[in-house]
Amino acid sequence: MAGDDKTLEGAGPIVELLDEAECLRLISAGGVGRIGYTGRFGPTVLPVNYALYEGTIVFRTGQHGPMGEDLRTGIEHAESKVAFEIDELSPAAREGWSILIQGAAHPVDSEAERASVVQSGVEPWPGGEKELFVRVIPTQITGRRIRRAGPPAG
Amino acid sequence: MAGDDKTLEGAGPIVELLDEAECLRLISAGGVGRIGYTGRFGPTVLPVNYALYEGTIVFRTGQHGPMGEDLRTGIEHAESKVAFEIDELSPAAREGWSILIQGAAHPVDSEAERASVVQSGVEPWPGGEKELFVRVIPTQITGRRIRRAGPPAG
Repeated sequence: MAGDDKTLEGAGPIVELLDEAECLRLISAGGVGRIGYTGRFGPTVLPVNYALYEGTIVFRTGQHGPMGEDLRTGIEHAESKVAFEIDELSPAAREGWSILIQGAAHPVDSEAERASVVQSGVEPWPGGEKELFVRVIPTQITGRRIRRAGPPAG
Repeated sequence: MAGDDKTLEGAGPIVELLDEAECLRLISAGGVGRIGYTGRFGPTVLPVNYALYEGTIVFRTGQHGPMGEDLRTGIEHAESKVAFEIDELSPAAREGWSILIQGAAHPVDSEAERASVVQSGVEPWPGGEKELFVRVIPTQITGRRIRRAGPPAG
């Protein structure tokens, strides 16, 4: 299988880097993304339903659940560094795009800010008491798209 | 929107925890997962094509690319802690499952081990020289499934 590399490289896959504006356009409708952070049991990646709101990612989790606790540093104004990944991939075509947002996880604790981010309309799939809104404030946004130029020559 | 929580909770979403055997069954066919780790720019989550091989996750990356470098600790026999997430989600139905594997990222450096993991048949979508095989050796496997019992009553 390793020998297939050159065939694949010559025949098809084109990897394009996406600029920040294109990344924001692709994720503007919201949907499912994956939040990555270092929790009490090490690196953790979990899917959450999100909205893009005023240039930040907004999602909800339980105030006293493991994720809510892990995302709080315990130090006022100090915020956890997190990753937020969104993609749209077609396994059949082996094509698609993925976007990685790196930044700080900001738990929404003030009533005023909560009243604002509620307007994002984001709802967690599992229901339940997901009363903590978390915003991911991007410091870096990168993305790439993979597409095939044609069928493999080999 | 926040007021909808109770309606959703009462009407539909059922969250089930999946045991390890069920998790392994769900991911046995391979496909796309997301690797999460702390890289030089902080937490990072990226999609990769993987195979399940002898109880480990196997994927490929560039020997000297940023991921390959980030996953090496620089200390012999010391391995990075990583997360590997796999899911199958239906945004329309707001149902699906997700699995989180936490463990060590083991770069396959010996010829003998490489000859073994090549049999996993895993190929990276982007093609190119993804000559480094990485195995994620699970220390913890957790999963959950969300499904709806019926339409929301509200």
